[in-house]
Amino acid sequence: MKDTHKHSDEISDLGEFGLIRHLTRDLKIKNKSTCRGIGDDAAVLNFEGSRVVISSDLLAEGVHFNLVYTPLKHLGYKAAVVNFSDIYAMNAQPRQLLVSLAISRKFTVSMIDSLFSGIRLACEQYGVDLVGGDTTSSYTGLTISCTAVGEAADEELVYRNGAGKTDLICVSGDLGGAYMGLQLLERERKLFEKEREIQPALEGYDYVLERQLKPEARRDITALFRELGIQPTAMIDISDGLSSELIHICQNSDKGCRIFSDKIPVHPETERVAREFGMEPLIAALNGGEDYELLFTLPVKMFEKIGNRQEVSIIGHMVDVAEDLKMITAQGEAITLEAQGWNALR
Amino acid sequence: MKDTHKHSDEISDLGEFGLIRHLTRDLKIKNKSTCRGIGDDAAVLNFEGSRVVISSDLLAEGVHFNLVYTPLKHLGYKAAVVNFSDIYAMNAQPRQLLVSLAISRKFTVSMIDSLFSGIRLACEQYGVDLVGGDTTSSYTGLTISCTAVGEAADEELVYRNGAGKTDLICVSGDLGGAYMGLQLLERERKLFEKEREIQPALEGYDYVLERQLKPEARRDITALFRELGIQPTAMIDISDGLSSELIHICQNSDKGCRIFSDKIPVHPETERVAREFGMEPLIAALNGGEDYELLFTLPVKMFEKIGNRQEVSIIGHMVDVAEDLKMITAQGEAITLEAQGWNALR
Repeated sequence: MKDTHKHSDEISDLGEFGLIRHLTRDLKIKNKSTCRGIGDDAAVLNFEGSRVVISSDLLAEGVHFNLVYTPLKHLGYKAAVVNFSDIYAMNAQPRQLLVSLAISRKFTVSMIDSLFSGIRLACEQYGVDLVGGDTTSSYTGLTISCTAVGEAADEELVYRNGAGKTDLICVSGDLGGAYMGLQLLERERKLFEKEREIQPALEGYDYVLERQLKPEARRDITALFRELGIQPTAMIDISDGLSSELIHICQNSDKGCRIFSDKIPVHPETERVAREFGMEPLIAALNGGEDYELLFTLPVKMFEKIGNRQEVSIIGHMVDVAEDLKMITAQGEAITLEAQGWNALR
Repeated sequence: MKDTHKHSDEISDLGEFGLIRHLTRDLKIKNKSTCRGIGDDAAVLNFEGSRVVISSDLLAEGVHFNLVYTPLKHLGYKAAVVNFSDIYAMNAQPRQLLVSLAISRKFTVSMIDSLFSGIRLACEQYGVDLVGGDTTSSYTGLTISCTAVGEAADEELVYRNGAGKTDLICVSGDLGGAYMGLQLLERERKLFEKEREIQPALEGYDYVLERQLKPEARRDITALFRELGIQPTAMIDISDGLSSELIHICQNSDKGCRIFSDKIPVHPETERVAREFGMEPLIAALNGGEDYELLFTLPVKMFEKIGNRQEVSIIGHMVDVAEDLKMITAQGEAITLEAQGWNALR
């Protein structure tokens, strides 16, 4: 289908099968668990002795992304990576991805090419095979639905419900950055809509913008677990804010928690941007979404293995369920945690 | 979450997690391959020695369905069943389903309940576990993305590319009914939009309406294969019309074909409705979509096993690729097959 490059940029001229052939040309299979990829009624996978881990996500234009400030390649990359993040949150390795798109008439072949180049780059970076999906039209906007398939040995899998009463609560990377990046992009969009001459002032905000526009999944953390011989007792990825995710672990594990506000990792740039918006950085960390860091619990005896790792912060510990879910502030005040995370249905 | 019944009918009052809990209450796992269903970052499956078969589909309001004449329960049932059909088309058994929804503000909890009751009924009927998905808002309309996971022994799997040069071409059930059902519903919708007093005249059209609104996947045909010890050489499900699907098999198998117009199965009601619309019934069978019958090829020696089965029609045979893809009419004329099936991107 190399000649499709010479065709017009209208999706309707390619047709569904033409577009799929165009988007999936030269795909190379990387994993031995992928027996057959795109091109039949279904993909065929083989996991032999391993467990299969599977997760789906749906991103809708105007709700999860705004194309005014989201480059399509970044969007494709992010759509894939947030699904891989769910697989890593099970302590599994992503192996395959299925991508379904609903595309309105405003999109051209080159636009969908950009989107797909991001999806393909993410698959490349994370060693994942693109094995299926669906492409169709929509009346309005773009909808992206991804399903990621991963693999793990049964004994490696980590659920949300295994946290023990005195376990350490750990988080990778830092929090609140993606949320502040979004605030920044929204501010510039609104200014631009008022006055079209204004150029977006996005210099000096690289970190929070990258956190929002091109997040990564913490594959390195699950690799670290293997390297250090660590098996977390519970794990979840932080897509809706620390508070909401920690509540999930506590509820599923039937435990309470104590976290310490001064232990919650926040990047200096996140802090600076939050202040600029007149916002408490801690609020962005607790309730801002889309950080895609890993939140996990470990038995106390693992402290010496993980305590000095730069990429992991110990932010508190689990307690008995009767002791409730609380954050202790620097002033020693105990605040009950509430799920004020991003609500996709608000 | 039984108390959610007492809540208001506004989705925003339940929130995303509340809605998911509400929709997935009392789900019972049916398959031993389902280790963990809904409630973690991902579902966990175990297929031991079997192959995993996986397929995704996306349905968009206004493109794939019109809620003016599609009951939500039927829509949910159909959304699930069309995915199961892809799995049967591999000669595999569907085991798990993931459903992602994007829902606009016009939908209430009871509407989504109706949709889900159809999805759950389909899972019930076909012995499939609902193990995951995503629920989010959309700016306009409803988008349903389903991923079905199936299981088969490696040697049972049937691809599109195995048809031999003299193989019989077989089709289950009858064709064109779903397309005529759609024409009928569209006609009544247009009349209704012109004059709101008019009641839709849908009596006496039960068969074609059911073909459109509540299709079934041909699980019975794959069961028949096992019963008769038959292994098809190629198979595909007919979602875009016989012509388009047969072209897929021929291209993938590098073969040609001869089919005979008077062997193509058309239901008497489909024929009657087509005539009513001034349309050749054969055109509906060749190019109408959404029949979800199975098109498959068998070695000639299988003729005595399948030749007298009511549920299967032998419509022709494969030939060498040099002999092209042709349909022979009752008058003995040879017409080259073209893919005029439904184009999801038109």
